[in-house]
Amino acid sequence: MATVKLMVFYRRPEDEAAFWTHYREVHLPLVTKIPGLQKVLVNRVDQNPMGGEPAYFMIAELHFADQAAFDAAMASPENRAAGRDAMQFAKGLFTMLAMTET
Amino acid sequence: MATVKLMVFYRRPEDEAAFWTHYREVHLPLVTKIPGLQKVLVNRVDQNPMGGEPAYFMIAELHFADQAAFDAAMASPENRAAGRDAMQFAKGLFTMLAMTET
Repeated sequence: MATVKLMVFYRRPEDEAAFWTHYREVHLPLVTKIPGLQKVLVNRVDQNPMGGEPAYFMIAELHFADQAAFDAAMASPENRAAGRDAMQFAKGLFTMLAMTET
Repeated sequence: MATVKLMVFYRRPEDEAAFWTHYREVHLPLVTKIPGLQKVLVNRVDQNPMGGEPAYFMIAELHFADQAAFDAAMASPENRAAGRDAMQFAKGLFTMLAMTET
């Protein structure tokens, strides 16, 4: 079974300190309640090795055991609560992609 | 010590089959020669959960133990060889970001 991940790509917020406070104190606790979540990783972007401003500021990864676990997680009320929170504190700042490790 | 990753974001190639053949048979063997590489993950993008065409087709992750290992890897001739190959088979198709797991 292949790990299925949701990656969430955040652009740089205007107030980085306020972003991190909300992310750690409010958003992550909501994310960790999503059923079937195996692991959440928070990657702070350091640089664009090809030069120029990095397209993203932070990339979060939510890992699930397989497609069925991912689908159930996405349909859960806990995921909707995390999504609602993201739409408030980071509205317009993020995009997402679902992917499978090959 | 925090894992340092290079993520490589590939847009959809015109010829997906040719892309995968080259990626697996030529590019990955070059990548796995990069000194200090702990792990390489190949994530095939399935969908954009917010709707619309996914911005990327595949996201590769190269994992390193720490910043020093990452810096040494980036400066290595093996990395330059992998980069040269990418600039040939996937020119204009990819971007990269370096990041640290928090």
